[in-house]
Amino acid sequence: MRLVDNRYGKSKVRLVRVVRNGERHELRDFTVDIRLAGAYQPAHADGDNRAVLPTDTMKNTVYALAGEAPTGEPEAFALRLARHFLAHNPETATASVAVRERPWRRLAAGGNGHPHAFERDAGGERLAHVECRRDGETVESGLDGLVVLKTTGSAFADFRRDRFTTLRDATDRVFATEVRATWSCDRPEVDWSASFAGVRAALLNAFAAHDESKSVQHTLWIMGQAAFAARPEVRRIHLALPNLHHLLVDLSPFGMENPQQVFIATSEPHGLIEATLER
Amino acid sequence: MRLVDNRYGKSKVRLVRVVRNGERHELRDFTVDIRLAGAYQPAHADGDNRAVLPTDTMKNTVYALAGEAPTGEPEAFALRLARHFLAHNPETATASVAVRERPWRRLAAGGNGHPHAFERDAGGERLAHVECRRDGETVESGLDGLVVLKTTGSAFADFRRDRFTTLRDATDRVFATEVRATWSCDRPEVDWSASFAGVRAALLNAFAAHDESKSVQHTLWIMGQAAFAARPEVRRIHLALPNLHHLLVDLSPFGMENPQQVFIATSEPHGLIEATLER
Amino acid sequence: MRLVDNRYGKSKVRLVRVVRNGERHELRDFTVDIRLAGAYQPAHADGDNRAVLPTDTMKNTVYALAGEAPTGEPEAFALRLARHFLAHNPETATASVAVRERPWRRLAAGGNGHPHAFERDAGGERLAHVECRRDGETVESGLDGLVVLKTTGSAFADFRRDRFTTLRDATDRVFATEVRATWSCDRPEVDWSASFAGVRAALLNAFAAHDESKSVQHTLWIMGQAAFAARPEVRRIHLALPNLHHLLVDLSPFGMENPQQVFIATSEPHGLIEATLER
Amino acid sequence: MRLVDNRYGKSKVRLVRVVRNGERHELRDFTVDIRLAGAYQPAHADGDNRAVLPTDTMKNTVYALAGEAPTGEPEAFALRLARHFLAHNPETATASVAVRERPWRRLAAGGNGHPHAFERDAGGERLAHVECRRDGETVESGLDGLVVLKTTGSAFADFRRDRFTTLRDATDRVFATEVRATWSCDRPEVDWSASFAGVRAALLNAFAAHDESKSVQHTLWIMGQAAFAARPEVRRIHLALPNLHHLLVDLSPFGMENPQQVFIATSEPHGLIEATLER
Repeated sequence: MRLVDNRYGKSKVRLVRVVRNGERHELRDFTVDIRLAGAYQPAHADGDNRAVLPTDTMKNTVYALAGEAPTGEPEAFALRLARHFLAHNPETATASVAVRERPWRRLAAGGNGHPHAFERDAGGERLAHVECRRDGETVESGLDGLVVLKTTGSAFADFRRDRFTTLRDATDRVFATEVRATWSCDRPEVDWSASFAGVRAALLNAFAAHDESKSVQHTLWIMGQAAFAARPEVRRIHLALPNLHHLLVDLSPFGMENPQQVFIATSEPHGLIEATLER
Repeated sequence: MRLVDNRYGKSKVRLVRVVRNGERHELRDFTVDIRLAGAYQPAHADGDNRAVLPTDTMKNTVYALAGEAPTGEPEAFALRLARHFLAHNPETATASVAVRERPWRRLAAGGNGHPHAFERDAGGERLAHVECRRDGETVESGLDGLVVLKTTGSAFADFRRDRFTTLRDATDRVFATEVRATWSCDRPEVDWSASFAGVRAALLNAFAAHDESKSVQHTLWIMGQAAFAARPEVRRIHLALPNLHHLLVDLSPFGMENPQQVFIATSEPHGLIEATLER
Repeated sequence: MRLVDNRYGKSKVRLVRVVRNGERHELRDFTVDIRLAGAYQPAHADGDNRAVLPTDTMKNTVYALAGEAPTGEPEAFALRLARHFLAHNPETATASVAVRERPWRRLAAGGNGHPHAFERDAGGERLAHVECRRDGETVESGLDGLVVLKTTGSAFADFRRDRFTTLRDATDRVFATEVRATWSCDRPEVDWSASFAGVRAALLNAFAAHDESKSVQHTLWIMGQAAFAARPEVRRIHLALPNLHHLLVDLSPFGMENPQQVFIATSEPHGLIEATLER
Repeated sequence: MRLVDNRYGKSKVRLVRVVRNGERHELRDFTVDIRLAGAYQPAHADGDNRAVLPTDTMKNTVYALAGEAPTGEPEAFALRLARHFLAHNPETATASVAVRERPWRRLAAGGNGHPHAFERDAGGERLAHVECRRDGETVESGLDGLVVLKTTGSAFADFRRDRFTTLRDATDRVFATEVRATWSCDRPEVDWSASFAGVRAALLNAFAAHDESKSVQHTLWIMGQAAFAARPEVRRIHLALPNLHHLLVDLSPFGMENPQQVFIATSEPHGLIEATLER
């Protein structure tokens, strides 16, 4: 028996880091996953733990590095962590760190918002995924859980039919999805905050503006184009768009019409459309 | 054996109702629970279904009534439904309807937002719970899942100590909670939309402004006062505030201080503080 | 403004208690919720915490009492905890403790099972809910999440019809539910373990045997009767049976019949049938 | 912009298939995910749906194929579905089907169990994942959600220490995990049912018997060896073992000892140990 590959680490390390700029506080809310892969055969085969940094230490390291300095953007903090583990563990070939950020917004108070009171924000969570190897690094940025819906401007017709097809052409339907997008850039130094905001806005604007949607695939393509157009550093993007079906209710048994007004929102089953696009 | 009480109905009826005011669409997203209680002994004891309106029909009724006219506010739609079931089912003593509304906001586009593209909004879900009986009606409004956090302005000290107490006085701590509030009014005719918005804003403002918080209980009281002050129709309010603990990390083993900067967000266990307040 | 009622406490205290009878270990896995209600007006209105036992102390008390002696049955441990809080806190009028037990079974090994290796068991979770007041105590036992299904022996026909009814009579249908049952006894001293096992077995046997089911209501009644017949100490029982619909798929568009073979399992919407029965 | 890769399909198709062998019914409960990948550029770039089989048709196909004949084992049904889609869609390069089976066991009744009443079983869910390409097929079997725990026989000591390490050597600890295992075989024709049962039993037995566990990694290795020893057709196995920490409670502030009796079960953060092993 041989060890083809292995990795281990800590999942769901919950960190909230407050930065106190005088009266005005900033807040970052991260959930961190860490994985080390490398020459850990002795731990598996012999129960020899000498090279095994405890996952408890990985957790401590998240808090300690956050204590040394503010986290900065998710990508930056993930890089700090991954580089730390790679530097201190000679057996590690790859150190991976994933950060998921929960969004907060300031509560209203005066023009600039309250100095230290916050509300959970909408718009899904922000993602960063970093891999540090002995020969290089990769960084992926992203967002997850961005729920959007259009009440018109979307169709699905003229599709493939076989003996099991009962769906009819729809020239006007509700289009609802929960965007998951991950992307990578063509340079190491990126303004992560501006890049994230730019891609996010481009995806939302393209979704809203694309009123000639022929399918989820079609809108996905337009959204990808918008991301590339908005942010020149983005080299590659992966989009996953579930089709959260809203079924038009048949009210004819009750002698009523339903001109695109009454819908059943469903959660299962759902379509799922995914693609990777490259500049 | 006797039947002390009984109720039956349909849960999680998912309705999305679109109102097409020309180009500009409105959207309501409700999840509806229906319960009928009354003289249903024969169904239980004898398997006699003659008085049993199928829960499938309850589901159909949600969609049919939404087809007859727009839903309006959650309270109004719950009342329409409950009155319908009470009127058409002589065996029913009480018809209860609960509506949970998911919030959507328009995507940006010009000054007024996009006419038919929406994003899931933050701020928790809106609740309405109606009970219609032969001798009267009760209406409860509410919100759930409103997540807020303050990075300072909150303490917990000078509390009861016993032999199992290890907690130390905190003069400055993170205060995070997920507000669930339900309230009732002293009149049947209420501007439900204004009332909801007013209570919600009052709760948020009070939470943000209360910088002398001695405990969750203390802030709960202030939030209740603010709701009464903001909306004269509110007669009674119930508030449930979990204490979503953010633990200050002890960085001293690493030779570091932690001046209220690095926290572990936890989900279990959590405190839970509840009270009902009446004008 | 007045305080109509209030309660506070700790939720989701996770306890695993191991009893080491020599080589053979026993295991109990409890999640505990604690609530105190009483004269806590000063905490709310004045921020005066002198009577407020921290919820952190409640958590510690769970572990400390489990350290003093094995937990015993959920009802017994809930009573120990609730009596402790009532005894030590003069402001407390009611101390409530809810215990939810996750089931484990021994892994196979010889005739009696492995001495210290366990697998999560099926059959739902066991519940106990205790309320201790200055003038008495109440104990409720229960189970939750017991998922059962019958592929035949269940009907629903001859029901009430109105203009929104489209459901057709079913003489043979799948009946699936997730039983939640809670019951109370007519005496303070009960063999909790035997009582729980007896009620649970009675509910399962009645569900399985009732092949003339005319409705969920009808089977609920039979299940209640079986619980009373099996355990004389049970005085009152509440049963909540969701109807987890399994829809027969219409295969006729594909030129196929579907003689009760192919079903869509659904999770929403679902029926919910509840009743309280008393001896 | 170019399309690097793409796939689309239906997720969470819920199927319950009953086989009525006279009085004695059999039951399979599958959740099916389908994905097609291939030459779908026109759908994305041009909104041309002529090659796009609707995901609604994929869903229908699940039910239609289940109507034509019993599903058989998850692997067999996934193969039937994937081959169907590949055969009927020339644009498809790869058809992937994942099946997740929920376990049911017969309720007790006589020696052989009840003929048509079932209870949700423990032991996690069974997995099958199939990929059919123009040039070949791969089949992966698996299980997920198998929760096991040992109260002794597990240690973690003599590990790597750095400046952020606070964990102390543990010579005796609780070891709890939720096994996810996926494996592939070296031949196309496998007795899927016997293979699944054999691997599952081997994993459980190895977990129970390995009382000299030096780490999760160490036990993972032993479990992999056991799977290979039990089933000669298994060529490769991937094991993912979260370390569901059970923290020994410090009762010393209360003047009490805690000789491995009282534990806090935690859900986050948790360790995660993964490896792929090959014969």
